[in-house]
This record gives sequence, C-alpha cells and structure tokens, in this order.
Amino acid sequence: MSTAVPSTQREQIVVIGADAAGMSAAHQALRSAKAAGRDVDVIALEKTSDTSYSACGIPYLVAGTVGTTDELSARTPEKHRAMGVDLRMNVTATQIDLDTRTVTYAHNTGGAQEVVRFDKLVLATGAHPIIPDWAVTAEGELVGGVHPVKDLDHARHWLDLVSRPSPGGDTATRRRAVVVGGGYIGVEMAEAMVQRGFSTTLLTRSAVMSSLDSDMSERVRETVQAGGVDVVTNTTVADIDIVDGHVRSVTGSNGQVYPTDVVVLGLGVRPATELGVAAGLPIGERGGYLPNERQEVAEGVWAAGDCCEVIDRIRGKYVLAPLGTHANKQGRICGYNTVGGSHEFPGVLGTAITRFVSAGTHVEVARTGLGTREATEAGFEVESLVTVGGTASGYMPERSPIATKIIADRRTRRLLGVQIVGGAQSAKRIDTAAAVLWGEMSVDDLAAMDLSYAPPFATVWEAIQLAARRLSDRM
Amino acid sequence: MSTAVPSTQREQIVVIGADAAGMSAAHQALRSAKAAGRDVDVIALEKTSDTSYSACGIPYLVAGTVGTTDELSARTPEKHRAMGVDLRMNVTATQIDLDTRTVTYAHNTGGAQEVVRFDKLVLATGAHPIIPDWAVTAEGELVGGVHPVKDLDHARHWLDLVSRPSPGGDTATRRRAVVVGGGYIGVEMAEAMVQRGFSTTLLTRSAVMSSLDSDMSERVRETVQAGGVDVVTNTTVADIDIVDGHVRSVTGSNGQVYPTDVVVLGLGVRPATELGVAAGLPIGERGGYLPNERQEVAEGVWAAGDCCEVIDRIRGKYVLAPLGTHANKQGRICGYNTVGGSHEFPGVLGTAITRFVSAGTHVEVARTGLGTREATEAGFEVESLVTVGGTASGYMPERSPIATKIIADRRTRRLLGVQIVGGAQSAKRIDTAAAVLWGEMSVDDLAAMDLSYAPPFATVWEAIQLAARRLSDRM
Repeated sequence: MSTAVPSTQREQIVVIGADAAGMSAAHQALRSAKAAGRDVDVIALEKTSDTSYSACGIPYLVAGTVGTTDELSARTPEKHRAMGVDLRMNVTATQIDLDTRTVTYAHNTGGAQEVVRFDKLVLATGAHPIIPDWAVTAEGELVGGVHPVKDLDHARHWLDLVSRPSPGGDTATRRRAVVVGGGYIGVEMAEAMVQRGFSTTLLTRSAVMSSLDSDMSERVRETVQAGGVDVVTNTTVADIDIVDGHVRSVTGSNGQVYPTDVVVLGLGVRPATELGVAAGLPIGERGGYLPNERQEVAEGVWAAGDCCEVIDRIRGKYVLAPLGTHANKQGRICGYNTVGGSHEFPGVLGTAITRFVSAGTHVEVARTGLGTREATEAGFEVESLVTVGGTASGYMPERSPIATKIIADRRTRRLLGVQIVGGAQSAKRIDTAAAVLWGEMSVDDLAAMDLSYAPPFATVWEAIQLAARRLSDRM
Repeated sequence: MSTAVPSTQREQIVVIGADAAGMSAAHQALRSAKAAGRDVDVIALEKTSDTSYSACGIPYLVAGTVGTTDELSARTPEKHRAMGVDLRMNVTATQIDLDTRTVTYAHNTGGAQEVVRFDKLVLATGAHPIIPDWAVTAEGELVGGVHPVKDLDHARHWLDLVSRPSPGGDTATRRRAVVVGGGYIGVEMAEAMVQRGFSTTLLTRSAVMSSLDSDMSERVRETVQAGGVDVVTNTTVADIDIVDGHVRSVTGSNGQVYPTDVVVLGLGVRPATELGVAAGLPIGERGGYLPNERQEVAEGVWAAGDCCEVIDRIRGKYVLAPLGTHANKQGRICGYNTVGGSHEFPGVLGTAITRFVSAGTHVEVARTGLGTREATEAGFEVESLVTVGGTASGYMPERSPIATKIIADRRTRRLLGVQIVGGAQSAKRIDTAAAVLWGEMSVDDLAAMDLSYAPPFATVWEAIQLAARRLSDRM
C-alpha cells in the first residue's frame, strides 16, 4: 500500500462512481480547472464495467426498442480517458479515510488493494436496487429468473431472459412474467414484457403509480390493464416457488399463485452510502447523504446523485429523488465546487414522467410538486380538482384526452402540485406546471398565463390552464 | 326607431360580435349575474351567420384534415340562445351612441335599422383581414381565386376553390397556388395547399415566420422548402394578372411571374374599430382599442379580443396580439366586470405556435417573449444562443431535433424570450418558457429547474434547459 503523498503534488480530485453524477463532476472539475489555469488530476473509480449509462433506458432495451446496451452508454471509458479523466474500471472502493484523505480500493479481479490520496472527494456511489428476502437463495444469490433493473449488468441478464424459451420447457405456452412493483420501473418493464410477448402480471403493494393521488393512479391502472397487463393492487409477494434454481411461480399476499417464467424486481432503490457511513459521515432518515446547498457532506467532500437525499423546495425538507436529472445537475455543481466554485443546488419539485404503450394503448403519466397527502401533511389547506380536457382542438385527429389534477393551497392560492394522466402528447405539459411551482406562483397565475395554442397542439384554453381556472373559480 | 327606455327596466348588456371574445363575455355575464342573483338580459349582435368558430382551424379544414365547417363551430346560435343569450344573427352594428347608451344595427337582408339600449356594452368586433389593393377589382370586389383566411365564409370559399379543377382548363396540369404572407396563416395555408395537391409558392416580404429571429426563421424556411413549397423571401406582390375575372398569375417585386390558380392572402389582420372610432373612443397607434386592465374602454364599455391592443408584460406597452387565447380570457373578464366584477387581464407574452407538415417533413415552430430586435429596442442588453438538442433520448426512435434560441438580459440575467424550431414534439415546450417569463425568472432558473425526464420524452438535460444552461454559462 502507498501512503498519502505530500501536498506539493498536483491537486488530486477523487470521484467514486462513474455514472451520471460522478462523470458530470469529473468533467466539470477538469473544465473549471482549465478555465482557472489550475492543474488538477481527476481520478474516478468505477466498480462495474460501464460508465455514464442510461438506467432509464433499460426497459426500452429489454422491450427491443433500443438495439444494444452500447446505445445506452453516453460515453465509453475510453472517451472519458481521452477527455482527461484517470478512470479506473472494475474497482470497488472499500474505505474512505477522512483523516489521511485517502480512498482504498480493490480490483474486482482480485490482487492487492490500492490507496489513492485525495485533496477533494466526490461521492457518487448511486443506489442499490431493493432486493427482498424471497428473491435471494440461501447462498445469497438471486433466484434464477428474478432480476432487478438498475444497471447494465441487469440489462444484459434481462436481454438473455427475454430471448429464452419458457423454462417450463413448453415452448407452445406463452411465456409469463410477474413484475413486482407498480412505480415507474414496474410500469415500464411491464410494457417491455408485453412487447416481448410475455403474459404479464403486475403486483403492487398499493396502487399503480402510487406517487399519484389515488384517483389519478386508478386512471393509470385502468389503462395498463386495458393494455394487456393483469394488474393486481394492494398485494405483496408472500412467497415464490423455485424449481431447479429457477422461479416457477409467485404467491401473492392475496393467496393467489401466479405461475411465471421471470420476475422483475421494480421495488425502488436505497442510497449506497456504506462507505460514507463507515467513514463517519452523517446519513439521513431515508438512508442518503445530507449535502448542504453546495452538495458538501464534509470539509472537502461532496456527494451527488442517487446516494444523496435532496431538498424538496416546497416543503423545505430532505426527500429521496433518485433521478438522472438531479444526478447530472448535482454532479456538475460538485465539479465546480471542487475547484473553488460556490455553486448551489436549488432543490427538487418531485417532477417525474413516464408512459405505457402496448397495442392500441398509450397512456402518459406525469407529476410535479406535492400530492394531496404530502401537501396535507405539510400543513397546507388543500384544494384540488381533476379536469379532463384534450391535447388538441376537438376537430383535430391528434386529439387525445388529458386528465389534469391541480392541487393548491386555499390560504395563499399557491400552486402545490399537478398530476397528469392522458394520451399521446399529454404528459410533457407537466414542465409548465413545474415552472409555475419553481416560481412559487399561484393557481391563478397558471390560469391566466399566455400559453401556446394552435389546433394540433392544444385547446384554446390549454388543458392544464383550464384545469387551473376551474379550481381557481372554485376556491 | 325606438328610443332609450327607462332604467327601471331589466339591466341590459349588449355585446357586439359573437365569436370567442363576445360569447365568452355573454356567457360569463349570465353566469355571474345568476350567481349574484341579478337579473340581466344579454343581447349579442353578429354580422355573419356563424358564432364561436375556430378561425385557427380553417387551414386544417382547407387541407381536408377537418371534415366540415360545422366541426369548427364550438357552439351554434341555437345553443347560445338555449343558454340564455338573446343572439341576433346577420345584423351589422352601424352606430354606437355613448350619450343615449344605444347601439343601432341593420339587418344584412335590408329593412329598417333597429336600436337597442344598453346599460353595459362589450365591443368584440374582431379584426379585418388585410386586403391589398391588387386583390380588389375596380368594383371593390375580391379578384376571383383570391381570398383571405379569416372567417367561415372565407373557409367556404376555400373549400370551393380547392375542389375545382384548374381554371386554366388544363386538368392534366397540376393546380397552382400562391400564398402571400409568411406568418402563421401563410405557413399553415401553404401546408393545406400542398396537402390538396397544389404546386405551391409562398411569397413573403421578409422571412418565413418573421416573428422569429432571422437565424431561427431561416430554419423554418429550409424545412418548408424541403416540404415542397417554393419559398420566395424578401418579395412582395407587384401586380397580378386577371383573366375572365380570375387570377392567372402573380408578379413579384423581384420581377418573377408566378402562374397560379389561386392566391391565399395571409397578410395579417387589423383591429375592427370603426364603430368605436365614430363613437369617439380612443384608438392606439396600432389601430386597436386601448382597454385598461379591466378591459374597460369607457364608462360602462368594455372591449375584448382582436379589436384591442394588449399590454406586453415584458415591455409594459401596448402591442397587437390577435389570438383566440387572449380573446377568450378577455371576454371572460369583460363578462365578470359587466356585472360588478373587477377582474383584470394580466397582459401577454407573445406566445405562439404552429407547425408545417407535408410528406416526410414535420417542422414545429414556437416563440414566446421578446425577439432579439424587440428586446434590444426595449433597452435590454441582449445575450442569446441557439442550441440544438433532441426531443427524446438519443437511442429512442421518437427523437427529433429541436433548436432552441434563448434570449436574456445581460444585466439582470432575466429570461426575455425563447424560440423553438424542431421536429415532432418540440414546440409545445414553449409553454415552460412562457411560465418562466410569466414569473419574471432568470435564465439560471430555467437552467436549474426540475423538469421532467424519461427516454421517450426528453434528454436528461431537457432541451430548452440545456439551451438555457449554455447561455447561462456564457453570460
């Protein structure tokens, strides 16, 4: 092992994790250093063989929409290196020492551990998929046919699984999939499995898209069901049946047995903070690092991406929001700040979007801000209303329905949240609502503002604006 | 003629014009009166045989996308009457007397003029299409084959014209159209003519979509040209050739002769304010009424829609923005205020959107806020940048290009305007920018805010946000 080297050496920035947050930090640090005429070395440690990949793209890869895993990689390791990052792949950081300012790491292929000195450290260790006990064998391995959907190794497993005949051996039988979890990944993977020809059951402990209010999530459930997925709500997995090491059926908490060839684990993620915990860094009640507005977690140490909790702008409290959008922005802020910047991450609104498409079915789903329960718990006096409108003029063939739920505070008339469930071209309208929330504007502002109209694009009272107006009238 | 009747009669609200602004006012007045327990009569005068139609839908009717003119009518006269409006069709208001509080009107079929008393008056007389001298015969009639695109009578003429064989008599020859004007109606009618199989030339005195900056309008020109329209910029009509009362060719100011069967007049509109001018109401330098924030133009007199100038929120000055969105909102405000309300119209941003679609070509265009010239003239220190991104992740088949121009003020960093030219699913993003402008937020706010991302809908740095970030970095 080497030891920490004298500070007369070039300034050294170590980044743990080479996905969105880490590589945004690494490259921004190099750019900012260059602009400032400073010499820095940026060393990045990555435990997998992939960098800068789109986890969000995996369902579309599994569905066959995207041809290869390579397409999901924004930048290869070679490209990162060519741009100046000292990128060390397939190595796992095992210890951070905040006193000696070193990180110890092991090569995944074995051999002696190495130690690297840092002047500045960026933690971008991401999150672990949540793996329930029933999905793991006594030996600690995943049961055959059961996989999460988090990284490109999982993607490769899924591509392998969907290309196999039924493990039951009966090739005449339609293959079957059980998706566990009704959130974004669950719905997107259900779409992928249907598109791959699997008879698909989606099991969720509460609702489909439970990040929406129940009246809106019910609209999603209806459409996903109409799109060919057998949706089972308010049900968890009680047990699974394993034959020859491979899953053969799932038993729900409702007592039903669901024969299946594969099980998708879409149960969300938890921040990967073991290294920081061991190093004594504080961790929030949701398991993530608690960065300040400059993304600092300790003197000279920053954190970015899914390993962090983030500030919800409306409630002013830490929440989990493991999304690539935040990871990229936070990584960039860390990059600036490691070389003397003082950039700040302004928090999140909880904006999210997805869709479910199968033959003849196209539902889009989006939300931003607080839901009714979150807003009520935060002490707001909630008024809300669902309005169904159209994405285009009534006489245009493009028109599809759009249900918009507007949530506002009775006392201040401030807009608190918007949820959308609709057809094609409906969901991206959520960004307009997000901008209104960002500016802390009122439901009246949303109703009055000058939004775009032409027959192929909107109704003359834009759908989300009509919804805001109706709630505004009622308040 | 009757005379003004005693004020002990029921309160009488007269609305001149029964399209978007007028009918929004009429129905809101009835609703507000009912809610307040007040007895009012609402009388509406309409000079055509159509009410509440979508002028914006006419190009799609001409194109054949919309089947009938009826589909463009949101509400028939019968429906308005059933809802309580005393609607008098095919009558032309000829005089307003603000002293006797009366409106005189004539039946279009002749007969004696009538006089109606008003307690409250709403002017919703709309706008006239601009008709150049060369389009009119010595008898004051439109030249055969030459028509504007403003009301449903024009629409009926166009449906007739596009269904005829070439007036040249040579049915083997492809029919030809010249569209004069490169604005929204010009581009939309060029699309309609191409879709109807016409060989189409678009003549514009400046650029295609000159409400955009020239670098952005040039992108539109390229695509419209690629979509099969012969676009001739910086050219006006010098003369037209008429044979047997029907246009046969157009001679441009460039000296070129363009043989044609029809000529579309897409030269914009001017406020229809003759009645108010004669009654002594003040008129702005752009020819429209100058309502205050409650849309009042005189004691007990309101105006709404295309006959008005409107306040540009960013510059704080009157401009023309003849759009159905404003007409509906202003009409509603007038309706409230005629029965004692004090609602205010908060002004406009100049948001607009359109598209051009022909075989293999799909370009969407949108703008909001100020262009570079407008912003510079208003005294801002303009910084701007065009960034080309994508509407979806790079690996998704939905992805289309989106060019975004961000315009901001160097001193305050305030966002001043955004322009978009792109493929499918690009233009409606303008609403997000409009919300940022509405809240007087900065280019940094747009770059930082929590906008939605999933692979089919956006890149991880949403396109307009990436564009804002790049300008923010540079400022």
